[in-house]
Amino acid sequence: MEKMFVVKIGGNIIDKEEDLVTFLKLFADIQQPKILIHGGGKLATDLAADLGIEQKLIDGRRVTDEATLKLITMVYGGFINKNIVAKLQSFNCDAIGLSGADANLMSAEKRNTGTIDFGFVGDIKKDGVNSCFLKLLLNNKSIPVIAPITHNNEGQLLNTNADTIAFEIAGSLSAHFDVHLIYCFNKKGILRSGDNENSAIRTITKASAENLKDEKIINEGMIPKIDNAFKALASGVKKVTLGHALELDKIIEGFAGTSIE
Amino acid sequence: MEKMFVVKIGGNIIDKEEDLVTFLKLFADIQQPKILIHGGGKLATDLAADLGIEQKLIDGRRVTDEATLKLITMVYGGFINKNIVAKLQSFNCDAIGLSGADANLMSAEKRNTGTIDFGFVGDIKKDGVNSCFLKLLLNNKSIPVIAPITHNNEGQLLNTNADTIAFEIAGSLSAHFDVHLIYCFNKKGILRSGDNENSAIRTITKASAENLKDEKIINEGMIPKIDNAFKALASGVKKVTLGHALELDKIIEGFAGTSIE
Repeated sequence: MEKMFVVKIGGNIIDKEEDLVTFLKLFADIQQPKILIHGGGKLATDLAADLGIEQKLIDGRRVTDEATLKLITMVYGGFINKNIVAKLQSFNCDAIGLSGADANLMSAEKRNTGTIDFGFVGDIKKDGVNSCFLKLLLNNKSIPVIAPITHNNEGQLLNTNADTIAFEIAGSLSAHFDVHLIYCFNKKGILRSGDNENSAIRTITKASAENLKDEKIINEGMIPKIDNAFKALASGVKKVTLGHALELDKIIEGFAGTSIE
Repeated sequence: MEKMFVVKIGGNIIDKEEDLVTFLKLFADIQQPKILIHGGGKLATDLAADLGIEQKLIDGRRVTDEATLKLITMVYGGFINKNIVAKLQSFNCDAIGLSGADANLMSAEKRNTGTIDFGFVGDIKKDGVNSCFLKLLLNNKSIPVIAPITHNNEGQLLNTNADTIAFEIAGSLSAHFDVHLIYCFNKKGILRSGDNENSAIRTITKASAENLKDEKIINEGMIPKIDNAFKALASGVKKVTLGHALELDKIIEGFAGTSIE
Protein backbone atom coordinates (compact mmCIF):
# COMPACT_ATOMS: atom_id res chain seq x y z
CA MET A 1 0.00 0.00 0.00
CA GLU A 2 1.06 3.58 -0.58
CA LYS A 3 2.55 5.42 2.37
CA MET A 4 0.84 8.54 3.71
CA PHE A 5 1.17 10.95 6.63
CA VAL A 6 -1.48 12.29 9.00
CA VAL A 7 0.10 15.16 10.93
CA LYS A 8 -1.44 16.96 13.90
CA ILE A 9 -0.06 20.34 14.90
CA GLY A 10 -0.70 21.70 18.38
CA GLY A 11 -1.75 25.14 19.55
CA ASN A 12 1.57 26.21 21.06
CA ILE A 13 3.20 26.09 17.60
CA ILE A 14 0.27 27.87 15.95
CA ASP A 15 0.68 30.75 18.42
CA LYS A 16 4.21 31.51 17.15
CA GLU A 17 3.96 32.84 13.57
CA GLU A 18 7.62 32.16 12.78
CA ASP A 19 7.57 28.56 14.07
CA LEU A 20 4.28 27.91 12.30
CA VAL A 21 5.73 29.05 8.96
CA THR A 22 8.85 26.87 9.44
CA PHE A 23 6.64 23.88 10.27
CA LEU A 24 4.34 24.50 7.28
CA LYS A 25 7.37 24.57 4.95
CA LEU A 26 8.46 21.16 6.29
CA PHE A 27 4.91 19.87 5.87
CA ALA A 28 4.69 21.23 2.30
CA ASP A 29 7.94 19.39 1.47
CA ILE A 30 6.48 15.95 2.22
CA GLN A 31 6.24 14.21 -1.14
CA GLN A 32 3.71 11.49 -0.20
CA PRO A 33 -0.06 12.00 0.33
CA LYS A 34 -0.65 13.90 3.56
CA ILE A 35 -3.28 15.47 5.79
CA LEU A 36 -2.85 18.22 8.38
CA ILE A 37 -5.06 18.52 11.46
CA HIS A 38 -4.70 21.67 13.53
CA GLY A 39 -5.71 22.59 17.04
CA GLY A 40 -6.58 25.95 18.43
CA GLY A 41 -4.14 27.95 20.45
CA LYS A 42 -4.20 31.09 22.51
CA LEU A 43 -6.04 33.18 19.90
CA ALA A 44 -9.48 31.83 20.87
CA THR A 45 -8.79 32.43 24.56
CA ASP A 46 -7.55 35.97 23.85
CA LEU A 47 -10.58 36.76 21.72
CA ALA A 48 -12.92 35.34 24.38
CA ALA A 49 -11.33 37.72 26.88
CA ASP A 50 -11.64 40.68 24.48
CA LEU A 51 -15.34 39.90 23.97
CA GLY A 52 -15.97 39.21 27.66
CA ILE A 53 -16.99 35.60 26.99
CA GLU A 54 -16.42 33.71 30.20
CA GLN A 55 -14.65 30.34 29.91
CA LYS A 56 -16.53 27.80 32.04
CA LEU A 57 -14.70 24.77 33.38
CA ILE A 58 -16.21 21.64 35.00
CA ASP A 59 -13.69 19.32 36.66
CA GLY A 60 -10.94 21.23 34.88
CA ARG A 61 -12.52 20.66 31.47
CA ARG A 62 -13.76 23.44 29.27
CA VAL A 63 -17.47 23.71 28.61
CA THR A 64 -18.45 24.72 25.07
CA ASP A 65 -21.47 27.01 25.43
CA GLU A 66 -23.05 28.72 22.42
CA ALA A 67 -20.78 31.78 22.58
CA THR A 68 -17.66 29.60 22.86
CA LEU A 69 -18.76 27.43 19.93
CA LYS A 70 -19.24 30.56 17.83
CA LEU A 71 -15.76 31.73 18.83
CA ILE A 72 -14.20 28.37 17.98
CA THR A 73 -15.97 28.27 14.62
CA MET A 74 -14.65 31.75 13.83
CA VAL A 75 -11.09 31.22 15.07
CA TYR A 76 -10.38 27.54 14.28
CA GLY A 77 -12.68 27.12 11.26
CA GLY A 78 -12.04 30.59 9.87
CA PHE A 79 -8.92 32.49 10.87
CA ILE A 80 -6.43 29.71 11.68
CA ASN A 81 -7.64 27.28 9.00
CA LYS A 82 -7.67 29.81 6.13
CA ASN A 83 -4.32 31.33 7.09
CA ILE A 84 -2.66 27.90 7.20
CA VAL A 85 -4.18 27.09 3.80
CA ALA A 86 -3.03 30.38 2.24
CA LYS A 87 0.51 29.81 3.60
CA LEU A 88 0.65 26.25 2.28
CA GLN A 89 -0.59 27.44 -1.11
CA SER A 90 2.32 29.91 -1.18
CA PHE A 91 4.66 26.91 -0.66
CA ASN A 92 3.11 25.15 -3.68
CA CYS A 93 1.14 22.77 -1.50
CA ASP A 94 -2.42 22.58 -2.85
CA ALA A 95 -4.14 22.77 0.54
CA ILE A 96 -7.89 22.76 1.10
CA GLY A 97 -9.34 23.72 4.49
CA LEU A 98 -12.20 21.66 5.91
CA SER A 99 -14.32 21.33 9.01
CA GLY A 100 -16.20 18.14 9.80
CA ALA A 101 -19.39 19.61 8.30
CA ASP A 102 -17.75 20.19 4.90
CA ALA A 103 -18.52 17.26 2.60
CA ASN A 104 -19.87 15.53 5.72
CA LEU A 105 -16.24 14.83 6.59
CA MET A 106 -16.81 13.99 10.27
CA SER A 107 -20.19 13.02 11.61
CA ALA A 108 -20.42 13.28 15.40
CA GLU A 109 -22.87 13.12 18.28
CA LYS A 110 -23.13 15.54 21.16
CA ARG A 111 -21.38 14.08 24.16
CA ASN A 112 -23.78 12.74 26.75
CA THR A 113 -21.95 11.80 29.92
CA GLY A 114 -24.99 11.79 32.15
CA THR A 115 -24.18 14.10 35.01
CA ILE A 116 -21.91 16.68 33.33
CA ASP A 117 -23.04 18.74 30.33
CA PHE A 118 -19.97 19.79 28.36
CA GLY A 119 -22.17 21.72 25.95
CA PHE A 120 -21.53 21.63 22.21
CA VAL A 121 -18.83 18.96 22.33
CA GLY A 122 -18.99 16.09 19.85
CA ASP A 123 -17.56 12.60 19.62
CA ILE A 124 -17.07 11.19 16.13
CA LYS A 125 -19.57 8.42 15.39
CA LYS A 126 -18.47 4.89 14.50
CA ASP A 127 -17.53 5.02 10.78
CA GLY A 128 -18.21 8.77 11.00
CA VAL A 129 -15.19 9.79 8.88
CA ASN A 130 -15.91 10.26 5.16
CA SER A 131 -12.70 8.57 3.99
CA CYS A 132 -14.09 8.31 0.42
CA PHE A 133 -14.01 12.08 0.10
CA LEU A 134 -10.52 12.27 1.61
CA LYS A 135 -9.35 9.72 -0.96
CA LEU A 136 -10.95 11.76 -3.76
CA LEU A 137 -8.99 14.82 -2.62
CA LEU A 138 -5.72 12.93 -2.15
CA ASN A 139 -6.06 11.33 -5.62
CA ASN A 140 -6.43 14.88 -6.95
CA LYS A 141 -3.22 15.92 -5.09
CA SER A 142 -5.35 18.19 -2.88
CA ILE A 143 -4.08 18.31 0.70
CA PRO A 144 -6.78 18.42 3.42
CA VAL A 145 -6.22 20.85 6.31
CA ILE A 146 -8.73 19.96 9.01
CA ALA A 147 -10.10 22.19 11.79
CA PRO A 148 -11.27 20.53 15.04
CA ILE A 149 -14.99 21.05 14.40
CA THR A 150 -17.54 18.34 13.59
CA HIS A 151 -21.30 18.31 13.00
CA ASN A 152 -24.26 16.13 13.97
CA ASN A 153 -25.96 15.95 10.53
CA GLU A 154 -28.85 17.97 11.98
CA GLY A 155 -27.33 21.40 11.43
CA GLN A 156 -25.38 21.61 14.68
CA LEU A 157 -21.62 22.23 14.70
CA LEU A 158 -19.68 20.61 17.55
CA ASN A 159 -16.29 21.20 19.18
CA THR A 160 -14.09 18.10 18.93
CA ASN A 161 -10.61 17.41 20.27
CA ALA A 162 -7.96 17.72 17.52
CA ASP A 163 -5.84 14.81 18.85
CA THR A 164 -8.87 12.54 18.64
CA ILE A 165 -9.69 13.76 15.14
CA ALA A 166 -6.12 12.94 14.04
CA PHE A 167 -6.43 9.40 15.38
CA GLU A 168 -9.88 8.86 13.81
CA ILE A 169 -8.77 10.20 10.41
CA ALA A 170 -5.60 8.07 10.50
CA GLY A 171 -7.60 4.97 11.43
CA SER A 172 -10.21 5.52 8.72
CA LEU A 173 -7.51 5.77 6.03
CA SER A 174 -5.49 2.77 7.17
CA ALA A 175 -7.59 0.46 4.99
CA HIS A 176 -6.25 2.30 1.93
CA PHE A 177 -2.79 3.54 2.95
CA ASP A 178 0.18 2.69 5.17
CA VAL A 179 -0.53 5.55 7.57
CA HIS A 180 2.13 7.22 9.70
CA LEU A 181 0.39 9.37 12.33
CA ILE A 182 2.55 12.17 13.74
CA TYR A 183 1.63 14.34 16.72
CA CYS A 184 3.70 17.54 16.51
CA PHE A 185 4.10 19.84 19.48
CA ASN A 186 6.81 21.95 21.11
CA LYS A 187 8.83 19.12 22.65
CA LYS A 188 11.14 16.56 21.06
CA GLY A 189 8.92 13.68 22.19
CA ILE A 190 8.26 12.06 25.56
CA LEU A 191 11.17 13.35 27.63
CA ARG A 192 12.69 11.18 30.32
CA SER A 193 13.57 14.32 32.26
CA GLY A 194 10.93 16.94 31.69
CA ASP A 195 13.23 19.90 31.05
CA ASN A 196 15.94 18.14 29.04
CA GLU A 197 15.14 18.25 25.32
CA ASN A 198 17.87 15.70 24.68
CA SER A 199 16.20 13.04 26.82
CA ALA A 200 13.47 12.03 24.36
CA ILE A 201 12.58 8.36 24.66
CA ARG A 202 13.03 6.69 21.25
CA THR A 203 10.41 3.97 21.58
CA ILE A 204 7.47 3.25 23.83
CA THR A 205 5.65 -0.08 23.90
CA LYS A 206 2.42 -0.90 25.69
CA ALA A 207 4.42 -2.41 28.57
CA SER A 208 6.90 0.45 28.89
CA ALA A 209 4.04 2.98 28.70
CA GLU A 210 2.56 1.60 31.92
CA ASN A 211 5.91 1.94 33.70
CA LEU A 212 6.38 5.48 32.35
CA LYS A 213 2.91 6.42 33.59
CA ASP A 214 3.78 5.06 37.05
CA GLU A 215 7.01 7.06 37.03
CA LYS A 216 4.96 10.17 35.98
CA ILE A 217 7.23 10.55 32.93
CA ILE A 218 4.10 10.20 30.82
CA ASN A 219 2.08 12.83 32.63
CA GLU A 220 -1.43 14.25 32.51
CA GLY A 221 -1.42 16.06 29.18
CA MET A 222 0.41 13.21 27.46
CA ILE A 223 -1.78 10.33 28.70
CA PRO A 224 -4.63 10.87 26.18
CA LYS A 225 -2.05 11.30 23.36
CA ILE A 226 -0.37 8.00 24.23
CA ASP A 227 -3.71 6.24 24.67
CA ASN A 228 -4.85 7.56 21.28
CA ALA A 229 -1.56 6.35 19.79
CA PHE A 230 -2.17 2.76 20.95
CA LYS A 231 -5.79 2.93 19.78
CA ALA A 232 -4.54 4.12 16.39
CA LEU A 233 -2.13 1.18 16.11
CA ALA A 234 -4.94 -1.20 17.10
CA SER A 235 -7.13 0.28 14.34
CA GLY A 236 -4.55 -0.44 11.65
CA VAL A 237 -2.33 2.67 11.64
CA LYS A 238 1.23 1.52 10.80
CA LYS A 239 3.26 3.95 12.90
CA VAL A 240 2.70 6.70 15.47
CA THR A 241 5.33 9.27 16.46
CA LEU A 242 5.26 12.22 18.85
CA GLY A 243 7.82 14.94 18.29
CA HIS A 244 8.83 18.55 17.80
CA ALA A 245 7.03 20.40 15.00
CA LEU A 246 10.29 21.95 13.81
CA GLU A 247 11.79 18.45 13.38
CA LEU A 248 9.01 17.10 11.16
CA ASP A 249 11.52 16.19 8.43
CA LYS A 250 13.70 14.24 10.91
CA ILE A 251 10.64 12.52 12.38
CA ILE A 252 9.64 11.35 8.90
CA GLU A 253 13.17 10.06 8.24
CA GLY A 254 13.03 8.21 11.57
CA PHE A 255 15.74 10.25 13.30
CA ALA A 256 13.65 12.15 15.86
CA GLY A 257 10.63 11.90 18.12
CA THR A 258 9.20 9.18 20.30
CA SER A 259 7.74 6.23 18.41
CA ILE A 260 4.84 4.30 19.86
CA GLU A 261 4.96 0.62 18.94
CA MET B 1 -24.72 21.28 -22.13
CA GLU B 2 -25.99 20.47 -18.66
CA LYS B 3 -27.81 23.23 -16.82
CA MET B 4 -26.42 24.55 -13.55
CA PHE B 5 -27.13 27.34 -11.06
CA VAL B 6 -24.75 29.83 -9.45
CA VAL B 7 -26.66 31.52 -6.63
CA LYS B 8 -25.47 34.52 -4.62
CA ILE B 9 -27.14 35.26 -1.31
CA GLY B 10 -26.85 38.72 0.24
CA GLY B 11 -26.13 39.80 3.78
CA ASN B 12 -29.60 41.02 4.66
CA ILE B 13 -30.98 37.48 4.31
CA ILE B 14 -28.07 35.96 6.23
CA ASP B 15 -28.86 38.26 9.15
CA LYS B 16 -32.33 36.72 9.60
CA GLU B 17 -31.91 33.13 10.81
CA GLU B 18 -35.47 32.12 9.85
CA ASP B 19 -35.24 33.55 6.31
CA LEU B 20 -31.79 32.04 5.83
CA VAL B 21 -33.07 28.56 6.73
CA THR B 22 -36.06 28.92 4.36
CA PHE B 23 -33.72 30.04 1.58
CA LEU B 24 -31.26 27.18 2.23
CA LYS B 25 -34.11 24.66 2.01
CA LEU B 26 -35.05 26.07 -1.42
CA PHE B 27 -31.40 25.94 -2.47
CA ALA B 28 -31.03 22.34 -1.23
CA ASP B 29 -34.08 21.36 -3.33
CA ILE B 30 -32.45 22.37 -6.63
CA GLN B 31 -31.84 19.10 -8.49
CA GLN B 32 -29.20 20.33 -10.96
CA PRO B 33 -25.53 21.08 -10.16
CA LYS B 34 -25.31 24.28 -8.11
CA ILE B 35 -22.94 26.61 -6.27
CA LEU B 36 -23.76 29.05 -3.46
CA ILE B 37 -21.81 32.26 -2.88
CA HIS B 38 -22.53 34.15 0.29
CA GLY B 39 -21.82 37.69 1.43
CA GLY B 40 -21.30 38.99 4.90
CA GLY B 41 -24.02 40.74 6.81
CA LYS B 42 -24.32 42.65 10.01
CA LEU B 43 -22.45 40.10 12.13
CA ALA B 44 -19.00 41.36 11.05
CA THR B 45 -20.01 44.97 11.75
CA ASP B 46 -21.43 44.02 15.17
CA LEU B 47 -18.30 42.07 16.09
CA ALA B 48 -16.08 44.94 14.95
CA ALA B 49 -18.02 47.24 17.29
CA ASP B 50 -17.73 44.73 20.17
CA LEU B 51 -13.96 44.51 19.65
CA GLY B 52 -13.54 48.25 19.14
CA ILE B 53 -12.24 47.82 15.60
CA GLU B 54 -12.91 51.06 13.79
CA GLN B 55 -14.42 50.78 10.29
CA LYS B 56 -12.55 53.15 7.98
CA LEU B 57 -14.24 54.49 4.88
CA ILE B 58 -12.65 56.32 1.93
CA ASP B 59 -15.14 57.91 -0.51
CA GLY B 60 -17.86 55.85 1.13
CA ARG B 61 -15.98 52.59 0.55
CA ARG B 62 -14.77 50.36 3.34
CA VAL B 63 -11.03 49.98 3.86
CA THR B 64 -9.87 46.47 4.80
CA ASP B 65 -7.05 46.95 7.30
CA GLU B 66 -5.38 43.98 9.01
CA ALA B 67 -7.86 43.85 11.91
CA THR B 68 -10.83 44.01 9.52
CA LEU B 69 -9.37 41.26 7.32
CA LYS B 70 -8.98 39.06 10.39
CA LEU B 71 -12.59 39.77 11.35
CA ILE B 72 -13.85 38.94 7.85
CA THR B 73 -11.84 35.72 7.75
CA MET B 74 -13.33 34.71 11.09
CA VAL B 75 -16.93 35.72 10.36
CA TYR B 76 -17.31 35.03 6.61
CA GLY B 77 -14.79 32.20 6.23
CA GLY B 78 -15.57 30.62 9.61
CA PHE B 79 -18.88 31.32 11.30
CA ILE B 80 -21.21 32.07 8.38
CA ASN B 81 -19.65 29.59 5.95
CA LYS B 82 -19.58 26.63 8.35
CA ASN B 83 -23.10 27.28 9.67
CA ILE B 84 -24.52 27.44 6.14
CA VAL B 85 -22.70 24.18 5.30
CA ALA B 86 -23.97 22.40 8.45
CA LYS B 87 -27.55 23.56 7.68
CA LEU B 88 -27.35 22.37 4.06
CA GLN B 89 -25.96 19.01 5.21
CA SER B 90 -29.02 18.63 7.47
CA PHE B 91 -31.17 19.14 4.33
CA ASN B 92 -29.30 16.30 2.56
CA CYS B 93 -27.32 18.73 0.41
CA ASP B 94 -23.67 17.63 0.44
CA ALA B 95 -22.21 21.12 0.87
CA ILE B 96 -18.52 21.94 1.15
CA GLY B 97 -17.38 25.38 2.33
CA LEU B 98 -14.51 27.07 0.55
CA SER B 99 -12.59 30.32 0.49
CA GLY B 100 -10.55 31.37 -2.52
CA ALA B 101 -7.38 30.03 -0.88
CA ASP B 102 -8.81 26.52 -0.55
CA ALA B 103 -7.67 24.39 -3.49
CA ASN B 104 -6.44 27.67 -5.00
CA LEU B 105 -10.07 28.32 -5.94
CA MET B 106 -9.70 32.06 -6.60
CA SER B 107 -6.37 33.67 -7.27
CA ALA B 108 -6.42 37.47 -6.85
CA GLU B 109 -4.20 40.51 -6.73
CA LYS B 110 -4.30 43.28 -4.17
CA ARG B 111 -6.18 46.23 -5.64
CA ASN B 112 -3.88 49.01 -6.71
CA THR B 113 -5.85 52.09 -7.67
CA GLY B 114 -2.99 54.53 -7.37
CA THR B 115 -4.18 57.21 -5.02
CA ILE B 116 -6.48 55.28 -2.67
CA ASP B 117 -5.26 52.30 -0.63
CA PHE B 118 -8.25 50.07 0.12
CA GLY B 119 -6.01 47.73 2.11
CA PHE B 120 -6.38 43.97 1.82
CA VAL B 121 -8.89 44.02 -1.03
CA GLY B 122 -8.37 41.68 -3.95
CA ASP B 123 -9.52 41.50 -7.56
CA ILE B 124 -9.67 38.05 -9.14
CA LYS B 125 -6.93 37.60 -11.75
CA LYS B 126 -7.71 36.79 -15.38
CA ASP B 127 -8.40 33.02 -15.47
CA GLY B 128 -7.99 33.11 -11.68
CA VAL B 129 -10.90 30.75 -10.96
CA ASN B 130 -9.96 27.07 -10.58
CA SER B 131 -12.95 25.75 -12.53
CA CYS B 132 -11.30 22.29 -12.83
CA PHE B 133 -11.61 21.82 -9.10
CA LEU B 134 -15.21 23.07 -9.08
CA LYS B 135 -16.01 20.53 -11.82
CA LEU B 136 -14.37 17.77 -9.77
CA LEU B 137 -16.61 18.64 -6.83
CA LEU B 138 -19.77 18.98 -8.93
CA ASN B 139 -19.07 15.60 -10.61
CA ASN B 140 -18.87 14.15 -7.10
CA LYS B 141 -22.25 15.76 -6.23
CA SER B 142 -20.44 18.01 -3.74
CA ILE B 143 -21.98 21.48 -3.56
CA PRO B 144 -19.50 24.37 -3.17
CA VAL B 145 -20.43 27.11 -0.68
CA ILE B 146 -18.07 30.00 -1.27
CA ALA B 147 -17.05 32.77 1.16
CA PRO B 148 -16.00 36.16 -0.28
CA ILE B 149 -12.31 35.75 0.48
CA THR B 150 -9.52 35.24 -2.08
CA HIS B 151 -5.73 34.90 -1.86
CA ASN B 152 -2.71 36.19 -3.78
CA ASN B 153 -0.75 32.87 -3.96
CA GLU B 154 1.87 34.43 -1.70
CA GLY B 155 0.17 33.62 1.59
CA GLN B 156 -2.03 36.72 1.79
CA LEU B 157 -5.80 36.45 2.14
CA LEU B 158 -7.83 39.23 0.49
CA ASN B 159 -11.35 40.59 0.91
CA THR B 160 -13.31 40.33 -2.36
CA ASN B 161 -16.83 41.46 -3.25
CA ALA B 162 -19.27 38.52 -3.23
CA ASP B 163 -21.27 39.84 -6.24
CA THR B 164 -18.08 39.93 -8.29
CA ILE B 165 -17.11 36.44 -7.16
CA ALA B 166 -20.53 35.14 -8.27
CA PHE B 167 -20.06 36.65 -11.71
CA GLU B 168 -16.48 35.35 -12.06
CA ILE B 169 -17.44 31.82 -10.94
CA ALA B 170 -20.45 31.78 -13.29
CA GLY B 171 -18.30 32.98 -16.20
CA SER B 172 -15.56 30.43 -15.58
CA LEU B 173 -18.07 27.54 -15.62
CA SER B 174 -19.95 28.68 -18.72
CA ALA B 175 -17.55 26.74 -20.97
CA HIS B 176 -18.78 23.52 -19.32
CA PHE B 177 -22.39 24.24 -18.30
CA ASP B 178 -25.45 26.29 -19.28
CA VAL B 179 -25.11 28.62 -16.29
CA HIS B 180 -28.04 30.49 -14.75
CA LEU B 181 -26.64 33.14 -12.38
CA ILE B 182 -29.09 34.28 -9.68
CA TYR B 183 -28.53 37.22 -7.35
CA CYS B 184 -30.81 36.73 -4.32
CA PHE B 185 -31.57 39.56 -1.94
CA ASN B 186 -34.53 40.91 0.04
CA LYS B 187 -36.46 42.45 -2.88
CA LYS B 188 -38.46 40.82 -5.65
CA GLY B 189 -36.14 42.21 -8.33
CA ILE B 190 -35.61 45.68 -9.77
CA LEU B 191 -38.75 47.49 -8.61
CA ARG B 192 -40.32 50.16 -10.80
CA SER B 193 -41.54 51.92 -7.65
CA GLY B 194 -39.06 51.40 -4.87
CA ASP B 195 -41.51 50.50 -2.11
CA ASN B 196 -43.93 48.38 -4.14
CA GLU B 197 -42.87 44.72 -4.11
CA ASN B 198 -45.39 44.00 -6.87
CA SER B 199 -43.68 46.36 -9.31
CA ALA B 200 -40.72 44.14 -10.21
CA ILE B 201 -39.60 44.66 -13.80
CA ARG B 202 -39.70 41.29 -15.62
CA THR B 203 -36.91 41.91 -18.14
CA ILE B 204 -34.09 44.40 -18.55
CA THR B 205 -32.06 44.74 -21.73
CA LYS B 206 -28.91 46.79 -22.26
CA ALA B 207 -31.00 49.58 -23.81
CA SER B 208 -33.69 49.59 -21.12
CA ALA B 209 -31.01 49.49 -18.39
CA GLU B 210 -29.69 52.87 -19.56
CA ASN B 211 -33.18 54.41 -19.39
CA LEU B 212 -33.79 52.88 -15.93
CA LYS B 213 -30.48 54.31 -14.71
CA ASP B 214 -31.51 57.76 -16.02
CA GLU B 215 -34.87 57.43 -14.24
CA LYS B 216 -32.97 56.39 -11.03
CA ILE B 217 -35.03 53.17 -10.93
CA ILE B 218 -31.72 51.31 -11.13
CA ASN B 219 -30.03 53.14 -8.29
CA GLU B 220 -26.62 53.20 -6.61
CA GLY B 221 -26.51 49.77 -4.96
CA MET B 222 -28.02 48.08 -8.00
CA ILE B 223 -25.73 49.59 -10.65
CA PRO B 224 -22.76 47.25 -9.99
CA LYS B 225 -25.14 44.24 -9.85
CA ILE B 226 -26.65 45.13 -13.24
CA ASP B 227 -23.23 45.88 -14.74
CA ASN B 228 -21.96 42.50 -13.46
CA ALA B 229 -25.02 40.84 -14.96
CA PHE B 230 -24.27 42.20 -18.44
CA LYS B 231 -20.59 41.28 -18.05
CA ALA B 232 -21.67 37.75 -17.08
CA LEU B 233 -23.83 37.44 -20.20
CA ALA B 234 -20.94 38.70 -22.32
CA SER B 235 -18.67 36.05 -20.81
CA GLY B 236 -21.00 33.21 -21.82
CA VAL B 237 -23.42 32.92 -18.88
CA LYS B 238 -26.81 31.90 -20.32
CA LYS B 239 -29.17 33.74 -17.97
CA VAL B 240 -28.98 36.24 -15.09
CA THR B 241 -31.84 36.93 -12.67
CA LEU B 242 -32.15 39.20 -9.64
CA GLY B 243 -34.85 38.36 -7.13
CA HIS B 244 -36.07 37.63 -3.63
CA ALA B 245 -34.21 34.88 -1.76
CA LEU B 246 -37.48 33.40 -0.50
CA GLU B 247 -38.68 33.03 -4.10
CA LEU B 248 -35.66 31.06 -5.34
CA ASP B 249 -37.93 28.20 -6.52
CA LYS B 250 -40.12 30.60 -8.50
CA ILE B 251 -37.07 32.36 -9.97
CA ILE B 252 -35.75 29.01 -11.19
CA GLU B 253 -39.12 28.15 -12.74
CA GLY B 254 -39.08 31.56 -14.45
CA PHE B 255 -42.05 33.03 -12.58
CA ALA B 256 -40.27 35.62 -10.42
CA GLY B 257 -37.42 38.11 -10.37
CA THR B 258 -35.97 40.50 -12.91
CA SER B 259 -34.18 38.84 -15.81
CA ILE B 260 -31.26 40.56 -17.48
CA GLU B 261 -31.05 39.79 -21.19
